[in-house]
Amino acid sequence: MEDITIRFLDNFSKDEVDSPVLIEGLPGIGHVGKLVAEHIIHELGAIKIAQIHSVYFPPQVIIGEDSVIRLANNEIFFYKSDTHQVLFLVGDFQSTSNEGHYLLADQYLKIAEELGVRRIYTLGGFGVGHLVEEPRVLGAVNRIELKEEAAEAGATFDNGEPIGGIIGAAGLLPGLSASRNIEGICLMGETSGYLVDPKSATSLLKVLSNLIGLGIDATKLVERGVEMERMVQKLIEGERGVQDEELRYIG
Amino acid sequence: MEDITIRFLDNFSKDEVDSPVLIEGLPGIGHVGKLVAEHIIHELGAIKIAQIHSVYFPPQVIIGEDSVIRLANNEIFFYKSDTHQVLFLVGDFQSTSNEGHYLLADQYLKIAEELGVRRIYTLGGFGVGHLVEEPRVLGAVNRIELKEEAAEAGATFDNGEPIGGIIGAAGLLPGLSASRNIEGICLMGETSGYLVDPKSATSLLKVLSNLIGLGIDATKLVERGVEMERMVQKLIEGERGVQDEELRYIG
Amino acid sequence: MEDITIRFLDNFSKDEVDSPVLIEGLPGIGHVGKLVAEHIIHELGAIKIAQIHSVYFPPQVIIGEDSVIRLANNEIFFYKSDTHQVLFLVGDFQSTSNEGHYLLADQYLKIAEELGVRRIYTLGGFGVGHLVEEPRVLGAVNRIELKEEAAEAGATFDNGEPIGGIIGAAGLLPGLSASRNIEGICLMGETSGYLVDPKSATSLLKVLSNLIGLGIDATKLVERGVEMERMVQKLIEGERGVQDEELRYIG
Amino acid sequence: MEDITIRFLDNFSKDEVDSPVLIEGLPGIGHVGKLVAEHIIHELGAIKIAQIHSVYFPPQVIIGEDSVIRLANNEIFFYKSDTHQVLFLVGDFQSTSNEGHYLLADQYLKIAEELGVRRIYTLGGFGVGHLVEEPRVLGAVNRIELKEEAAEAGATFDNGEPIGGIIGAAGLLPGLSASRNIEGICLMGETSGYLVDPKSATSLLKVLSNLIGLGIDATKLVERGVEMERMVQKLIEGERGVQDEELRYIG
Repeated sequence: MEDITIRFLDNFSKDEVDSPVLIEGLPGIGHVGKLVAEHIIHELGAIKIAQIHSVYFPPQVIIGEDSVIRLANNEIFFYKSDTHQVLFLVGDFQSTSNEGHYLLADQYLKIAEELGVRRIYTLGGFGVGHLVEEPRVLGAVNRIELKEEAAEAGATFDNGEPIGGIIGAAGLLPGLSASRNIEGICLMGETSGYLVDPKSATSLLKVLSNLIGLGIDATKLVERGVEMERMVQKLIEGERGVQDEELRYIG
Repeated sequence: MEDITIRFLDNFSKDEVDSPVLIEGLPGIGHVGKLVAEHIIHELGAIKIAQIHSVYFPPQVIIGEDSVIRLANNEIFFYKSDTHQVLFLVGDFQSTSNEGHYLLADQYLKIAEELGVRRIYTLGGFGVGHLVEEPRVLGAVNRIELKEEAAEAGATFDNGEPIGGIIGAAGLLPGLSASRNIEGICLMGETSGYLVDPKSATSLLKVLSNLIGLGIDATKLVERGVEMERMVQKLIEGERGVQDEELRYIG
Repeated sequence: MEDITIRFLDNFSKDEVDSPVLIEGLPGIGHVGKLVAEHIIHELGAIKIAQIHSVYFPPQVIIGEDSVIRLANNEIFFYKSDTHQVLFLVGDFQSTSNEGHYLLADQYLKIAEELGVRRIYTLGGFGVGHLVEEPRVLGAVNRIELKEEAAEAGATFDNGEPIGGIIGAAGLLPGLSASRNIEGICLMGETSGYLVDPKSATSLLKVLSNLIGLGIDATKLVERGVEMERMVQKLIEGERGVQDEELRYIG
Repeated sequence: MEDITIRFLDNFSKDEVDSPVLIEGLPGIGHVGKLVAEHIIHELGAIKIAQIHSVYFPPQVIIGEDSVIRLANNEIFFYKSDTHQVLFLVGDFQSTSNEGHYLLADQYLKIAEELGVRRIYTLGGFGVGHLVEEPRVLGAVNRIELKEEAAEAGATFDNGEPIGGIIGAAGLLPGLSASRNIEGICLMGETSGYLVDPKSATSLLKVLSNLIGLGIDATKLVERGVEMERMVQKLIEGERGVQDEELRYIG
């Protein structure tokens, strides 16, 4: 078994792709990035082109509404129009180990290179610990030339905030892609950090839309946020069950 | 030393096996799966055909009643009649690390493929945190076509329950076997989660008996549950000793 | 860098050794095993023949009274007379990871095989949580035939005690050596588990002396126990310092 | 992706280096070592010659004041005059795992060997838990012959202090370099352990200056300590954010 397995679906040929951008929205603070990325996938009708499994994900399967088991995975979606080509990296989990974060990010970038990705947008939340009325969207870039474009699109650049850096895929993808000549822009919506935050996601979506030059209807974002919060709460309950189980692994 | 070692016993030849089913009953919530699998092994007089050792198990040996040391292991048993062939995967522990869960499950499936397994039943408990008078048996499958058969045998399919997914071998075996063309059905008996639960095991045994088409006498199940609870309590006490020891590893 | 490095000293040739026994006394509960093994080494004047370093030990160096740094290590000593050949495995630490315990034990046994070891004695403490006036010495063996000899030497065999099994090298060495045709006897002195316990060590030394057929003077055992307790307390204080340091690794 | 990547910058050729000493000042207790090493780098105008990335560092990027992302890394600087050649090993983090500490130290020493390093000075703090008016500088060496020189330079050798040994690079570098015929001297400034400690750093700088025979102006040390404390506090706050994020990685 490979530590990380990437399987492209049969419906997809790499020849279809030409200099796309990649939008990453894996789980993170306030699920802001996940919510935005999945919203755009639905609005644009992007199609799934690859599945990623890994021993660095939690050793756990997910059960669909139809009671069919599937492995925890990350997925790549693709949207193509006459004017735009966008890949999306979304999924269930990030790595459970420190090393796994690096190794997964490295594999994601191998795919990005193979598919000729020229720029990566990573989406995340920036937890401030309290409710925010008008959430800003903080930006960070892997080349200083990118700041102006992101600022014009509405991102805020604020003296090296967030001060603690960025962990996980949202930081490592632009961090590791600099040496591969892929542009990287990280956008982080301010959020309390406690709940799935559609307000923060709406701010983030606006800046991202400006950057990628695609108008995305935000109407269903709140609704999707409510649904995602419901799922997250369920998974947290499930996680509690998992911990109980681990206590009984003895014997 | 291999990370995972599988040793087939001399009494066994792979030629004996023809399209068996595999029943997994490793330790887990309420020890429901372990209790049922070990009960059937005893009732049918299945014989041990393989031993599995791994660095992913706790670094610990077990001492038999006769004071003879044996390594922590998992074991495969085999039962064969004119009409039925059943393999059993049971043992002392699951993995101590996340990655190990995946790597062990992968090895178990390599064995399953080698022995021509066509279907895997994984058995577990579904912890609900309180006593259950009439425990249901929740089902999950790795192909939607399997639901009808399992439901007819008495399994309940309830809107994607358990919501938190299934961790460990009970989930990963059907999850990873889908792409290997092995059918997978996971059966989980509702249980409080606090004690070895023979009542839950009795419900589970009934559904499983229906599915595999073998009548298994349930008389001794309660008795075996009491004995297993006694062992689990001992092991939990022992585990406390282990933790003490670890505190003193310094120096 | 190898995960485990074994370096034989120049003063030693493998030809000198003929069918020795191996006594393991690494750190553990009450430091009973460590105390007994190091006591015998001193009493017999055994000489150091090998050093073992490993990435599985804590990432830490030890500072001698002379302020000279040395790596954390385990060591092998050798004693040879006309009638007896004894190897000793002692040292600073056991593994910090579960997998490391298995991999280290496997390497120790490779050395044992190379040196023609026919029997391994592993020494440990059996923590009972309270002071014991007349500590028993519990035995466990890797072949049932060894029980009689150990019982005659004074070991107690008590219905599979210790119920939680044996963790670390004291259990894994006899556990893993069974398939290599090396006899294994584990001796565990009852101890409170809170302090280095010379009383338990004295009981253990007596049984071990009977088994190996070497009279070892126990006079200095108490004195060595007091010294070892002083060292352990120092190391525990040092470990606290380590934890402080880890809290500050940020930045 | 390599577990550890070392990249020498284009401005540097190994031919420029001739028997340098290496000064290590990675993060640790009171950031004493980091503060001193970075101060000397600035005072001497040493230039960066290599970057080190590793999966053993936290999976996290750092955001500069200009909002440009960079990977967590360690760095090597080089200073050369007619009379002196000094390499410096400094950076953001030490390893997050035990094994990683060993593997990183081993790689650092491979570089040291390649560059012909004849002696390594490792700098650290020695936490005493309270404010120290006149902080001593404790020394430890990897060869007893080095004690006299270090003592003459002002280091204190005090009966095997620090009793708990030395963890991380400050200990492993001299520990592992002994067998490579590289001299190793560890200098540890007494410090409370709670804050970046310029007073301790000043004492340490004095002893180190004597040893390397370079007068380093200490005027800006306090100012740099204040700045570093500000950064550390920011990073600690950021780390709190990280922990929040990890709690929400589910789903």
